[in-house]
This record gives sequence, structure tokens and C-alpha cells, in this order.
Amino acid sequence: MKKIVIINGPNLNMLGVREPEQYGTLTLENINAMLTARAHALDMQLEFFQSNIEGELVTAIQSAADADGVILNAGAYTHYSIAIRDAISSVKTPVVEVHLSNIHAREDFRHVSVISPVCKGSVAGFGEMSYVLALYSFS
Amino acid sequence: MKKIVIINGPNLNMLGVREPEQYGTLTLENINAMLTARAHALDMQLEFFQSNIEGELVTAIQSAADADGVILNAGAYTHYSIAIRDAISSVKTPVVEVHLSNIHAREDFRHVSVISPVCKGSVAGFGEMSYVLALYSFS
Amino acid sequence: MKKIVIINGPNLNMLGVREPEQYGTLTLENINAMLTARAHALDMQLEFFQSNIEGELVTAIQSAADADGVILNAGAYTHYSIAIRDAISSVKTPVVEVHLSNIHAREDFRHVSVISPVCKGSVAGFGEMSYVLALYSFS
Amino acid sequence: MKKIVIINGPNLNMLGVREPEQYGTLTLENINAMLTARAHALDMQLEFFQSNIEGELVTAIQSAADADGVILNAGAYTHYSIAIRDAISSVKTPVVEVHLSNIHAREDFRHVSVISPVCKGSVAGFGEMSYVLALYSFS
Amino acid sequence: MKKIVIINGPNLNMLGVREPEQYGTLTLENINAMLTARAHALDMQLEFFQSNIEGELVTAIQSAADADGVILNAGAYTHYSIAIRDAISSVKTPVVEVHLSNIHAREDFRHVSVISPVCKGSVAGFGEMSYVLALYSFS
Amino acid sequence: MKKIVIINGPNLNMLGVREPEQYGTLTLENINAMLTARAHALDMQLEFFQSNIEGELVTAIQSAADADGVILNAGAYTHYSIAIRDAISSVKTPVVEVHLSNIHAREDFRHVSVISPVCKGSVAGFGEMSYVLALYSFS
Amino acid sequence: MKKIVIINGPNLNMLGVREPEQYGTLTLENINAMLTARAHALDMQLEFFQSNIEGELVTAIQSAADADGVILNAGAYTHYSIAIRDAISSVKTPVVEVHLSNIHAREDFRHVSVISPVCKGSVAGFGEMSYVLALYSFS
Amino acid sequence: MKKIVIINGPNLNMLGVREPEQYGTLTLENINAMLTARAHALDMQLEFFQSNIEGELVTAIQSAADADGVILNAGAYTHYSIAIRDAISSVKTPVVEVHLSNIHAREDFRHVSVISPVCKGSVAGFGEMSYVLALYSFS
Amino acid sequence: MKKIVIINGPNLNMLGVREPEQYGTLTLENINAMLTARAHALDMQLEFFQSNIEGELVTAIQSAADADGVILNAGAYTHYSIAIRDAISSVKTPVVEVHLSNIHAREDFRHVSVISPVCKGSVAGFGEMSYVLALYSFS
Amino acid sequence: MKKIVIINGPNLNMLGVREPEQYGTLTLENINAMLTARAHALDMQLEFFQSNIEGELVTAIQSAADADGVILNAGAYTHYSIAIRDAISSVKTPVVEVHLSNIHAREDFRHVSVISPVCKGSVAGFGEMSYVLALYSFS
Amino acid sequence: MKKIVIINGPNLNMLGVREPEQYGTLTLENINAMLTARAHALDMQLEFFQSNIEGELVTAIQSAADADGVILNAGAYTHYSIAIRDAISSVKTPVVEVHLSNIHAREDFRHVSVISPVCKGSVAGFGEMSYVLALYSFS
Amino acid sequence: MKKIVIINGPNLNMLGVREPEQYGTLTLENINAMLTARAHALDMQLEFFQSNIEGELVTAIQSAADADGVILNAGAYTHYSIAIRDAISSVKTPVVEVHLSNIHAREDFRHVSVISPVCKGSVAGFGEMSYVLALYSFS
Repeated sequence: MKKIVIINGPNLNMLGVREPEQYGTLTLENINAMLTARAHALDMQLEFFQSNIEGELVTAIQSAADADGVILNAGAYTHYSIAIRDAISSVKTPVVEVHLSNIHAREDFRHVSVISPVCKGSVAGFGEMSYVLALYSFS
Repeated sequence: MKKIVIINGPNLNMLGVREPEQYGTLTLENINAMLTARAHALDMQLEFFQSNIEGELVTAIQSAADADGVILNAGAYTHYSIAIRDAISSVKTPVVEVHLSNIHAREDFRHVSVISPVCKGSVAGFGEMSYVLALYSFS
Repeated sequence: MKKIVIINGPNLNMLGVREPEQYGTLTLENINAMLTARAHALDMQLEFFQSNIEGELVTAIQSAADADGVILNAGAYTHYSIAIRDAISSVKTPVVEVHLSNIHAREDFRHVSVISPVCKGSVAGFGEMSYVLALYSFS
Repeated sequence: MKKIVIINGPNLNMLGVREPEQYGTLTLENINAMLTARAHALDMQLEFFQSNIEGELVTAIQSAADADGVILNAGAYTHYSIAIRDAISSVKTPVVEVHLSNIHAREDFRHVSVISPVCKGSVAGFGEMSYVLALYSFS
Repeated sequence: MKKIVIINGPNLNMLGVREPEQYGTLTLENINAMLTARAHALDMQLEFFQSNIEGELVTAIQSAADADGVILNAGAYTHYSIAIRDAISSVKTPVVEVHLSNIHAREDFRHVSVISPVCKGSVAGFGEMSYVLALYSFS
Repeated sequence: MKKIVIINGPNLNMLGVREPEQYGTLTLENINAMLTARAHALDMQLEFFQSNIEGELVTAIQSAADADGVILNAGAYTHYSIAIRDAISSVKTPVVEVHLSNIHAREDFRHVSVISPVCKGSVAGFGEMSYVLALYSFS
Repeated sequence: MKKIVIINGPNLNMLGVREPEQYGTLTLENINAMLTARAHALDMQLEFFQSNIEGELVTAIQSAADADGVILNAGAYTHYSIAIRDAISSVKTPVVEVHLSNIHAREDFRHVSVISPVCKGSVAGFGEMSYVLALYSFS
Repeated sequence: MKKIVIINGPNLNMLGVREPEQYGTLTLENINAMLTARAHALDMQLEFFQSNIEGELVTAIQSAADADGVILNAGAYTHYSIAIRDAISSVKTPVVEVHLSNIHAREDFRHVSVISPVCKGSVAGFGEMSYVLALYSFS
Repeated sequence: MKKIVIINGPNLNMLGVREPEQYGTLTLENINAMLTARAHALDMQLEFFQSNIEGELVTAIQSAADADGVILNAGAYTHYSIAIRDAISSVKTPVVEVHLSNIHAREDFRHVSVISPVCKGSVAGFGEMSYVLALYSFS
Repeated sequence: MKKIVIINGPNLNMLGVREPEQYGTLTLENINAMLTARAHALDMQLEFFQSNIEGELVTAIQSAADADGVILNAGAYTHYSIAIRDAISSVKTPVVEVHLSNIHAREDFRHVSVISPVCKGSVAGFGEMSYVLALYSFS
Repeated sequence: MKKIVIINGPNLNMLGVREPEQYGTLTLENINAMLTARAHALDMQLEFFQSNIEGELVTAIQSAADADGVILNAGAYTHYSIAIRDAISSVKTPVVEVHLSNIHAREDFRHVSVISPVCKGSVAGFGEMSYVLALYSFS
Repeated sequence: MKKIVIINGPNLNMLGVREPEQYGTLTLENINAMLTARAHALDMQLEFFQSNIEGELVTAIQSAADADGVILNAGAYTHYSIAIRDAISSVKTPVVEVHLSNIHAREDFRHVSVISPVCKGSVAGFGEMSYVLALYSFS
């Protein structure tokens, strides 16, 4: 049974509350529940972590060194956290980058991802389905 | 039964032949056959198109106006073809951008996608699985 | 009787269909018919060409070497086709650049025209009237 | 009978005198007389204004709020006068930008127009015919 | 009794008329009247100046050398008038920069203020309250 | 009675100690006491928060969703924290950006504020009076 | 006997006609005939291909996979065709880049070659002798 | 007897008053008197003009068409006035650019002169002696 | 006896584990033990701190205000943490920047250090010896 | 009998010694001997010069004013020596630029040649054959 | 009697020979003789130095530490020699930068002078008179 | 006994004389004597070289191919000498880059070191102690 860690970054605790016209009405808990159901069908075990603090995300990625995969939505840190990038490099676990929205259709500064180059792959723009597709990528 | 059009751009006719250490040993025909099998399970019907010519890709996207979705690997044109971008904008069919490799882990000029802003979403870095995940996104 | 060649580039075959809020509801055929009527009054003879393929536009411009003028809407290629620029330089026929919309009021990448420096002049932002004004410029 | 205001910016009072190899031998008075004749045929009434002073051009545009159109050759201010840009935005009258020469075939700093994005359209490169074509655009 | 000079730049004479959705419905006269009332309470004396001409604003700032403070809304000149910047440097009177709208939430070219570095401070985004807050800063 | 939350970012706990020639001799406690007195007169209730940790500032802004206003001095995070920017966007509470010093008169990297575009307004350069003016803006 | 493929891009079909002061009076046929004579002496067999269409050049390079060498004058595509670059990477045949004129003595945009990094070498500035020198490089 | 026109731009009317540590204690009148004395010895006749208004400087340069030389200190307009640049181009009179201070030892934005390319020469950094040296250049 | 505080930033807790080909096989504990031994010989007393959290590093630097020196390896934060830069400025204690690897021989974004300008000096590229050399600099 | 001067710049005295995997095992003497043999067959006379000192290369180019051609490998100076560029401009002798390696396939800073614009042509990427091809260009 | 050292950089030994249409027909010896005559009238003593070698110019400037002034035409090194800039900073002798031609009317790379910021002043564009005016500046 | 070569670049012969407030009062001879004493204690043998001439520094580095280490203060050449960079690459001897001052706290152009990427490590900001620390790095 594969173990996948799902790590969410800053402001994703506000999902369903924050700007629903941009991010939809599902809360992070709703999404996690839905993913757990999907994971069950794929014979995967999930662990969840969310933090607004960059350094705690660094530590969470380091702690996932024994997992079979990490699904990471680094939120705003995607665009400038070299610390998170280095944490991804420091573990052998493959990390898949996900985004709810199509970050390339938004402001210019969201077009740059400093973590993409060290991730295995990326999925963006499918709302909560982005997490599901990332999950499938580990099956 | 949904109809999905799968459009591949320049040099993807060389898959399996060209730089296998970068792109794997599957030919485009192998991938298409595999996708057809997956599509069958998802009750989808696929159409395939490949061309090295930018303008023919423009026309192919225009012609997919009646499909339920387009999966587009625009190859090198990803990085500069505003003509393809405009073609995507000209149809209402949702277009998903796919890439075999993680384009952000390669040369700088491959970090820019001029078509991302007008696509529904993007999937990159999972080899032939990128197409499969894109297919799932329409299910 | 002057001969003017009217060359339209990628996605202009979608006029009237594509994004009417941006480009109006006239099709390219409607515009061409209207231009033919105007040309008649000006004692001009028109030839029309449209292609989505950059290289075919290059060839069309080369073929207009014996015309009295070219009216060129290069569409998206306006912004990056040095090949079309070189084709314009290769003929003595004066070429007038036209755009339906005001390209400077749109995305940044549409503010650059690589063909302007080798055109006689440019007309932009008047919808189908852009072609008419260009036609008058040859009278 | 439509009222069109024709506003000319810095150094255009030197037309016919200044660099005739670049701008031709017609004076601004010659051009205005020719335009008046054309306007008569189009049942339009023209008003003329010229100033070397940026702020007077701002005021002139503000004062044209009741006209049916403005034809503006902002000269060198084209390239940096955000004040003129804001004046154009402050009136509902459509403003057409004109240039005698093809500004894109000249020095790099002349390739940028800060007023284009708020103008209805632009005409450049046809010498005094640029004004005429702009006039036709209001007919 | 402190003397404060309030200097407004280009197009601010159009307040209340120009783009009310952007700048509100108060005219410059309305704002000045409101400020006079506030100043009375603060035991301050106000002088008002408005011009569309950059050089007249330069002169106005020079003339305020004996005032206790200047409140300056340089309008579009904010973004490129080094002449106004030098005028501010040439007097010892502290100058406070104000803007009705939040210039950082608008076009990119409005994010740069060439006068900020030589002003005492800045207030932006509060509509006519921006002037009031600037007034309080001198109390 | 309005509730205003005053949030201070990194190194502002060092006020009065750190570089007094740059930031003055008042401690953060001094400023907060002074603001409490002013708020009393304005019939406002204040809450204070300070942290050196970016993610804790994100959480503090999220927690101010029920307040009538936030006064935010994000310190150094002003210049790069997209996470704080997103937190501001995620709440409907208006946020006013304040700075003690005139950030535009300092190093180049302090001229950019990534949070300005999502704030209601900004006040900078008046020392502790910047907070007071921001407070007045909510009255 | 070595087989060398000589591929010419857009507008090179106009050689001898187009801008002779820039490119000389020899037609492409003249050059090819001269190269055939030279190749005979070097015991080489030549194949020629010319197209104005980027995608056909891609295909031509792919088709040269069994040749001993390719001499490529990509014309204007030199400066932006990543598709041609990828085609060069997709074959093991060494490709030599040639230019008739010294591209570095012309407009800025001609100073960049996106294909140089994947070519074996380059020869530029010697008119038709550029092809001859490239031919010698394979002897 | 040669006629030389000496044109001074914005804020130079503040010389001797403004920032004496930067510009010295001589007023513009002092400098002009000194120059008149020097001109007498060189058998030259001087005319003086100063304005804070860009467009009046444009007109002054146009009016100097019959002079033997112009000495121009365009002040802050040096760095952005393309209108003044065009005025210089519009007259055949040679124009010498002068600056009191060494503009290259000051802020970055003062390192660019948009008028230098159309001036005959430039003299900077010698205080009022800059004018004298420029005067000698016409002897 | 001098007191030196040694502060390590994000991912340095992974030393010896993370990418040993890049950073060597010594753990942070090994390095600290080795430094303690060296410090003993130099009659220095060491304190150690490590955190993945930017704000905690800010606080640690503030807390070192009474030490004789700080040796700081800010890891990834080196490249963007203006908050850490400000913390260094806020204390009088001299701070020496160290890096295990030669950051200038790695990716472009590692060539920029936002903290260098406020540090006393820097040592990079000597592996764990970088810390030792920094220690010597305080002897 | 034509006289050709072959000038080599910095570090080319290390050929065969320095980085043979990058530059091959032939020494500069080996290459010169080979070129002498080739020149004999072409009825040319060769002169050789090498220096690590930029200014001596300048002088060497000046001294070649009476030669029929110069073959110049300016080594690292290629990328920044405007002095060498000016020396090339100062003589009428045609200069051909050569490089052993394909400079466009190496670091970014090697993609710029400040001397290319004033050379007759360039040959790069063929190892010692680059010199031979340059020699042929003078035959 | 003042001592002035006149230092000329690379390629200025070619004056009168090199590109006379750009630099005139006077040789450096002619200019020096003319300057000696002028210096005599001004009761100055001149020393001359010319070298093509950057480091020798550095040494020459260092050696002029006891002179009353240096007139420096650094030629091409003007645009990139930080070594020469540092040499100028290392002596207290005032250095005046001269150029024969108007460097701002030439190629872009000649618009930057890295030595200007540390020179006392600059004179450019007056041919050999540039040296004379510089000489006068020391009188 | 290890042999270390200490190479100093332009203007370092002026140490102790030049700008003592920036570089201290020790001469290069003082520093060398101090280093010799230190080297004795470390059982190292030192060789010293200084030149203002870039090419001589290149040669000196080439000549150090048999040494155990090079300590290089390239002075101003640090920022642009690709020739010195290539010399470092051409020898296997490890080279340590040193600077007296903290180059990152000075002008922008001193923040770039073109030699850092090919050096083993760097030490900057400790005055003459920078050399000593570099020496220790070889022990």
C-alpha cells in the first residue's frame, strides 16, 4: 500500500471561504475527504499537512522522505521559496506540483514557479481535480 | 460518448526514435494505441492529429470546435506560437496542454508557454502518462 | 487599373465566428465582398489570399511582386514572423499593415510588430474599416 | 455636420521647414487647407490646434469633449506623455492617433506609443495622407 | 497659522467629470472647499494651484518656498517629471505626495513615482481623503 | 464602535532600539499606547499583533476577517511576500499599508511593494504618524 | 561517397532577385550548380531542399537522418524556430549552420541564433562561399 | 560677430539659491553677466532664454535657427524630452549640451541624455565654466 | 572569552543526509562538534541555532545583539530574505556570511545574496572549513 | 602570393594542454604547422602572433594593415574587447573571426561577440578546421 | 607653472590614419604639437602618454599623482575598464574625460562611460578641440 | 612543503596609498611580509606577483600550474575579465578568490564576479585578513 503525503501551503486553509469565484466552494476538508475516498480505491494511504509558514512546509517535505510520493500545492510560496525547492531536492521522494487554478492565466508573477524544476511533474488548472490527477500519477 | 481530439506538434512524430533518454522508447503510435484503450474504458472516442507545420495545427484546433475536449502537445511551438494561442481562443472547446517532460527542468526558453494562459489546464512531466491524466481530466 | 493583393494570416478565416465581441460579426467573405465594392469605385482590382501557414504567407507576398500594393493582416505572425518581414523586404511592392483591433490596447506581446519597420504604413483599430482606409491609401 | 478637432504637437509647426527629406515639403498650413477641402466633401467641420507645450495639448483634448472626433499627432509626446494619455481617457470623444512617418522604421524609442492603448485606432506612415485616412475613419 | 499650498497637476481640473467610476463625483472645487473647512479647524491657511503644464507646476513649487508645507498631486507627471522632482529638491518646504486612487493597483507604468524619493511622505488610495490625511500630517 | 487590527511584521519589535537615526526612538509599545489614546477619541477599539514569521502574519490577516479595518506594516515582507498579498485578498476587510520611513527614498529593492495592489491605500514616510493617519482613514 | 543534404529556408528562393546589394546576384540554382561541381571534386553527393514553410524544414531535417551531413541556411527561422532546433537535436547527423551575410553586422534580432547551440559549427558572412566552406568541413 | 543663444531649462532660475552645495552660489544672472564679458572678448553676441516649460524651450530652439550656435542646459528635460531632441534636429544651428555638475556621478536616471545624440558636443562637470568652455567651442 | 553565535538556516538540518555529493557526509552535529573543538583552542564560546523558519532566524539574529560575532549560513534565504537582512542591520554585532558550496558556481538565482551588503564579510566554497575560516576571522 | 596574419588571443598558448576534452590535443604549434602546409598549397604566406594581452592584440591588428587578410581567434576578448573591435575597424584588411568550439553551445556570456559586427565573416565549431576554412575563404 | 598629463588609450595612435571621416585627418602628433603651443600660452607644461594596453594606462594614471591635472581619452576602454576607473579614484589629481567624437551619437555600447562618475568633468564631440577645451578647464 | 602563489591585480600596488579609508593603511609589501610570516608557521612557501595588466595576470595563473594553490585578488578585473576566468579553468591548481572589502556592499557593478564560478571558494570583506583566511584554507 503506497503512502502519499499531501502538503498544502499558505491560504489554502481558506479554500471554500476565500474568493470562491476564483477557487470554488469546496473547503480543504472537503477536498481531503474526497481524496481519501479516491485513494482507497487506488490502495493508497494518505497523510495531510497544511501550514501558512514556509519553514514548516520545508520540514514537512523533509519528513516525507519515507513516503512513496508527495503532492504539493505550495500556494504563493511556489513563486519565491527557494527554501522549499531545496527541501524537495533534499529528499528522494518524487514530488508532484499541483495548482487549483491555471497560474499562467493570472498575474505575471504567478507564471514563475521556482519549485517546478525539481518536481517530477506538475498539474494545474483543474480545481480539486488537480489533486486527483496527481494522485493517479502515483498509481 | 465524449469526443476528444489529441493533437501533437512538431517532432513528436519522432517519439521513440528521437533522444530516447529524454523522451522514452514509446512511439507516437504506441502512445495513441494505449490512449485508445484507456478511452474505451472511459467511454470516450479519440481522434488523432500530428503535424510539424504550425499553421496545420492552427487549422486542426479550429476544426475541433465540435469536440468535447482537445489534448494538445504543441511541442516547440508551445514557446512562441501566438497563432496557436489565438486558435485556442477562437474555439469554445476546452484545451488541455500536455508535455512529456518537465519543461521547467530544461532550458530557460522552454519555461515559457505562450499557450498556457488560454488553456483550461496543463499536465507536464509524466511521460506518456501526461496524456492519460489529461484524458482523465475530461472524464 | 491598379492591382492590390489582400493577404490575411492565421485565424482570420474564423472572423465572424471567433470572439465576435472582440472582432465583430462580419466574416472574411463579408469583408472581402465589401472591399470589392469599394475597389470598384476606386478603379482597383483586388486579389485575396488567406492562410494559417506562415510559409504560405511568405510565398504569397513574394508572388505579389507585380502588384501595385499589398494589404497585409498577418494576424498573430505580426508579432514574431521575421520570415514574413524578410518577404516584404524582398519585394518592391509597398505593403500596408492592417489590424482590425487596436493591438496596443491588448496584451503586451501584441504591442510589438516585427513587420512594421519594413511596411510603408499601418492602420489599426477601425475594424473592417482598417482595410478600407488601407485601400484608400493606394488611391 | 460632424465636428472634428485636429491637434498637432511639438515641432509640427516646423513641417515643410524641418527635415524635408524625412517629413516632406508641405507646411502645416498646407496640410490643414487640404484637409479643410476634404472635410467639406465629407460634410465635416474642422478645428485646428497646434502647440509645443504638453499641457496645452492636454487642455485642447479636454476641450474637445463635445466634438465628434479628434485627430491627434502628438509628435514626440507620443512616446512619453502619460498626461496626454490621461486627457484622452478623460473625454468620451474618440481619438485617432496619426503619424506622418512610419515611427516603427525609426529609432527604437519611437516604437513605443503611450497613447495608443487609449486611442480608437492609429494611422502611420502615409505622410499627409495619414490625416486624410483618419478623417475618412470618422465618415 | 501654518500656510499649506495644495498643488494639483494635469487632468485634475477634470475631477468629477472625468471617469467618475475611477475618481469619484467630487469636483476639484468641491474638494478644495472641503479642505478649506478642515484647514480652518486645524488653524491652517490654504493656497490652491492647478495646471496642466509641467513647467508651471515647477514654478508653483519654487514659489512655495516660504510655505510650511506642500501637498502635491502631480497626476501623470508623477511617473516621469524629473523637472518636478528637481523643483521639490530646490525648496526646503516639505512636500507630501498624494493620489486619489491606489496607483499600485493600476497599470504598471503608474507604479513608478519619480518624485517619491524627494518627498517627505506619501498618501494614496483614499479618494479625497488622501488630501485630508496629508493635511493632518502637517498638524 | 469600530474594531481595527494593527499588524506589524519582522524587526518592528526592535523599534526604538534598531537604527534610531532611521526609525526614531519610540518603541512599538510607545506607538501602540499612543494609538490606543487616539483610537479612544475616535471611538475605535484596537487589537495589536506583531510577528517576525511571515506565515503568522498570514494567519493574523485571515483572523481579522471580522474587523472593520487592518493597518499593516509588513516590514521587509512588503517587498516579496505574495503569501501576505494572498491573505489580504482572502479577506473582505480593507487593509491599509503603512511604513514609518519613505521606502522610495531608500534602496531600490524597497521601492517595490507586492502588497500595495491589493490594499485599499497606503501611507508612508511620516514616522509613527503614518499609523495615526491610517487610523484616521477609517474614521 | 558521402551524402550531404543542403537545406535552405524562407526567402532563399528569392536569391539573386531579392535585395542584390545585400545578397548578391547569384540565384539559388546558380549556387546549387556551383556546389554540385565542388562536391564532385570532393567525392560527395548532394541533395537540395528549399521551403518557406518552417514545418517542412523540420521534416526535411528529420529525413536527413541517414545522410553524412546537413548544411542548413534556415533564413529568418534561424532567429526563432525552436521547432527546427528540436529537429536538429532529433537526428544524429551533424548539421552545419550557414549564412550568406554576416548576421552580426545587421539588425539586433539577427544576432540571436536559436539553432547554433545544437549545430556542429557555423559559417557566416562569405556569401555563396559560406556554403562551400561548410562543404569542405565535411571533407 | 557671431550670435550665440544660451538656453537654460527648468529650475536653473533657482541657481545660487537651490542646493548651493550641489550647484554653487552664483545666480543665473551672475553667470550670464560673466558670459557676456567673455563673449565680448571673443567678439560674440549673446542672447539668453530661460524657461521651466518644455514646450517653450522647444520654441526657443526653433527660434534660434538663424544663430551661429546654441548652448543648451536642458536641466531635467535632458533625460526625457524627445520634443527638445526633435527641436534640435529641426534646426541646422549647432547645439552644444552643457551641465554644471557631472551628471554621470549622480543618480542613475541622470546618466541618460536623450538630446546628446543630436547635439554637436557636450561639456559637463565644470560648474559655470561648462558654459565658458562651450562658448570657446564656437570661437 | 568571546561569544560567537552560529546560526544555520533551512535544510541545513539535513546536512550529511541531503545530496552528499553536493554538501559532503558530515552532519550538522559533526560540524558543530568540530567547531566547538576549534573554538576551545581560540578561547571562544559557541552557541548554536538552526531553524527552517525565516522569522525564527530573524529573532535569533536579534537575540545575538550581545554576542561578539555571528556566523550565519542562511541557506536558501540568502537569496531573498530582506527580513533577515534587516535583522542583521538591526544589531551591531558583526555577522559573517558562510556557505558550504561555491554559490557562484551553481544556478543563477544562487548568485545573488541579499544579505551580503550588510554583513562584515563572506566565506564560501570550502565545505565545513567555511565555518572554521569564519571562526578565525573573529580571532 | 597573399599574406595572411593569424592572430591568437589569451589562453590559446595553452592549447593541447588546457582542457583537452573541450579544445582537443593539438598544440598551437601543431596547428600553425598544419596551417603553414595548407597555405603552401594555396600559395599563401602566413604570419603568426599570439598574446594574452589585449593591447598587444590591438597593436598586432593595426600592424596587419598591409596584409591581405587576418584570421583572428580573440579568445575570451571576443566577448568584451571593444578595443580590439576598434582596431579591426581601423584597418582596411578583412578580418575573419574563428573559434575552435561552438561558442553558442557554451555559457551565455560566450554567445555575444563584440567583434563580429566589424569582421568580414566568422567560422566556429570545427576545432582546428575552423582556421583552415578561414584560410580557404581568402583563396 | 601647472603640469598636465595627457593620456590617450587604444587605437588613438592611429588618429589621422584610421577612419578619417569619423576622426579627422590630424595625427596624434599633430594634436599634441597644437596642444603644446596652446599650453605655452596658458603657462602650462604638458606630458604625453599613449598606450593600447589597459594596464599601462592604469599605471600612467597612478604616475600622474603629482600632476595638476590629467586629460584622459581612454578610447574603447571608456566603456568597460573598471581598472582605469579605480586608478582614477586612487589619485587625487583631477581627471577630465575627453572624446573626439560625440560618443552618444554612435553605437549603443558607446553611450556608457564607466569612468565618467569618477572624473571631474567631460568634454566630447569637438574633435581635437575637445582636448583644448579640457586644457582651458585647468586654466 | 606546499607552494602557494599570491597574485594581485590592478591598483593593488597602490594599497596603503590609495583611499586608505576604503582599503586600510597597509601597503602590499606589508601584507606580503605578514603573509610570509604566517606561511612559515603553516609550512608553506609563498610566491608573489602583481600586475596592472590583465594579460600578465593570465600568464601568471598559467604559470602557477605546478603550485598547490593560488590566492587571487583580481581587483577590478574580477568583474569583467573572462580571459582571467579562462586562465583559471586552464590549470588544475585550485584558486581562491579574495577581496579586501566586501564587494557586495559597494557599487552594483562590483557585485558580479565573472571568476567566482571557476574558483574553489571565495573570501571577502576582512581586509588583509582575507588573504590569511585564504591561506588557512590550503592548510
